[in-house]
Amino acid sequence: MIKTSGRSAIEPFHAMDVLAEATKRKRDGHPVISMAVGQPAHGAPRAVVDAARNALRTERIAYTDALGRLELRERISRHYRTHYGVDVDASRIAVTTGSSAGFNLAFLTMFNAGDRVAITRPGYPAYRNILTALGLEVVEIPAGQATDFTLSPGLLDEAASRHGRISGVLLASPANPTGTVTARKALSALIDYCDANRVTFLSDEIYHGLTYAGEETTALSVSDRVLVINSFSKYYCMTGWRIGWMVLPDAAIRPLERVAQSLYISAPELSQIAACAAFDATEELEAIKSGYVANRQLLLERLPKIGFEIASPMDGAFYAYVDAGRFTNDSMQFSKTMLAEINVAATPGRDFDPVEGHRTIRFSYAGSHAEMEEALDRMAAWLS
Amino acid sequence: MIKTSGRSAIEPFHAMDVLAEATKRKRDGHPVISMAVGQPAHGAPRAVVDAARNALRTERIAYTDALGRLELRERISRHYRTHYGVDVDASRIAVTTGSSAGFNLAFLTMFNAGDRVAITRPGYPAYRNILTALGLEVVEIPAGQATDFTLSPGLLDEAASRHGRISGVLLASPANPTGTVTARKALSALIDYCDANRVTFLSDEIYHGLTYAGEETTALSVSDRVLVINSFSKYYCMTGWRIGWMVLPDAAIRPLERVAQSLYISAPELSQIAACAAFDATEELEAIKSGYVANRQLLLERLPKIGFEIASPMDGAFYAYVDAGRFTNDSMQFSKTMLAEINVAATPGRDFDPVEGHRTIRFSYAGSHAEMEEALDRMAAWLS
Repeated sequence: MIKTSGRSAIEPFHAMDVLAEATKRKRDGHPVISMAVGQPAHGAPRAVVDAARNALRTERIAYTDALGRLELRERISRHYRTHYGVDVDASRIAVTTGSSAGFNLAFLTMFNAGDRVAITRPGYPAYRNILTALGLEVVEIPAGQATDFTLSPGLLDEAASRHGRISGVLLASPANPTGTVTARKALSALIDYCDANRVTFLSDEIYHGLTYAGEETTALSVSDRVLVINSFSKYYCMTGWRIGWMVLPDAAIRPLERVAQSLYISAPELSQIAACAAFDATEELEAIKSGYVANRQLLLERLPKIGFEIASPMDGAFYAYVDAGRFTNDSMQFSKTMLAEINVAATPGRDFDPVEGHRTIRFSYAGSHAEMEEALDRMAAWLS
Repeated sequence: MIKTSGRSAIEPFHAMDVLAEATKRKRDGHPVISMAVGQPAHGAPRAVVDAARNALRTERIAYTDALGRLELRERISRHYRTHYGVDVDASRIAVTTGSSAGFNLAFLTMFNAGDRVAITRPGYPAYRNILTALGLEVVEIPAGQATDFTLSPGLLDEAASRHGRISGVLLASPANPTGTVTARKALSALIDYCDANRVTFLSDEIYHGLTYAGEETTALSVSDRVLVINSFSKYYCMTGWRIGWMVLPDAAIRPLERVAQSLYISAPELSQIAACAAFDATEELEAIKSGYVANRQLLLERLPKIGFEIASPMDGAFYAYVDAGRFTNDSMQFSKTMLAEINVAATPGRDFDPVEGHRTIRFSYAGSHAEMEEALDRMAAWLS
């Protein structure tokens, strides 16, 4: 008899289940359009691919230092200077195997089992799932219309008085799935609150570069005491390369390095080499982004006509989070049926919101414009 | 004030610290010879590099299913049939981001915080460090001359009566750092004991393919109820590609998939594509292995002459684990000084054995023969 652990009984990452089903259907010859996973239709920029091809010719791909190749850490440091005007020493940068490793490392390094970490609901499902698997208590704070779809000192106070002391706060801006861009003033207020209350602030900045309304703020322009998690997967279109980074307060560098040494050894070296080139691919990346702008406009116009009410700001990232309540009270079943009947893959809201997600659906609009149009046509016909 | 967690206060992975210091010294122009990290001097086989270069030309590198690309899972399944004569369905194979991810996933999926897991001492340091970070109790069982450098039902019984119920046993064969190859009969006895006592057996087979004496046995030829962890890093020379695999009992597949979805999303796709070609590179890989045979012979002859007594079997893997007691009672300091003074990097025994490692050192002989000779010359001159 094989007995698995209680802590592996976490919720599935439903978007990944949809991806697996979509992969299978594609293999069987079905014309699947994927709007489920947050993945750009474009591959990595040409300069990135060229850098990788070149490295394959000239370099032996090996383990690197646990915190990453110095070249990449220095290039990321330069990015903070040129893009944000913020000074971040390369020594504070840890290269990670995607933001997935960033979260795991941050949680293990900053929190002990039993600690409480606050996140928004709706929010990225892996936050909740990783925190739970690591024995942390997840405090989900509803973040909807009434709270500008983000957190505030008042909401954190209220959560602490209800649940007990909160050790950490993790906020994404732009946010998945809502596309919320938290304004600089609101972000500052949150970080000040965390400083005053000895709460660790984690800033998920994976969707930076993908803001269409409002102003993007890195938490590092507010404080040096935050942990920033970022990745090359979204703006830089490098999902399958599994490469990201963190920026750490000085005191966290060595503890995090220790954990990374044993849990990851190092991030994939070819991806580390190639990622250096991503920062110089701005022209290509901005062209890709302008495609998202067009897709976003298309979805904003057509989804409500089909009957999906837009449920959140969509100011950043590349998702439309919609109320599907007109069609279903079981978004899991709905998205399964939709994939089976019209080959459109979308993510059930349950992934992002265990309480109200039974009537919401998330569409990623990082695909091609033609695919978006085709998917909307299929849905319109199917639902009419 | 930044406060890091208690659980990040694990022991460093000292080999990685030595690597970081060696990298730095190389960058500064020092002629460093690295015998610290378990990394082949050879890069990936030509067919693997070609497959990667080709994929970069033709494919968009993307997320894959959490358990990996079907092509690779099926290729690994075929490897079990052709190489071991064991039938392993592709559905039982999970592609992982190196064996590092394999250990993390196995521990999270099979054990709850507080459970006890037995390993050998000496052993691979990341076992101990990951287990500790995840809140598991590590039971280190001394495995030396008297116990054939491996575990047995009797030793497990004794450990259980001393520490309390043991939930899991993790054994590597060939083993790091000792090179121990556990014989089929001994492995069977261990697995039978685990079955009878509802103990989960984890078999680390990362050094398979690198056996010079004795017979290599996959735990899967003994039982379907074990978890096997393997990787393309050692025999297949793909360290920096971060790619490995696990074989799971049916009941563990879905729980492990759930954890993998949120903690890793997927292993690097380019590495998944390229790894398929590794199984057909036997000729090149066997030539590399014959280099290890020559290096092993060289170290067996010369290390004792220098004053390092060989402390373990060296039947497999690519390490010489030696007693440096003639020179030091502080292997950490010894290896630091050796790197600083003669640019030879080796790993302090403390990594593998917190009790007796203060007088042992591990040399990796996966480097080139010329480098091994040069390192031995430097050490001989330095220590005489």
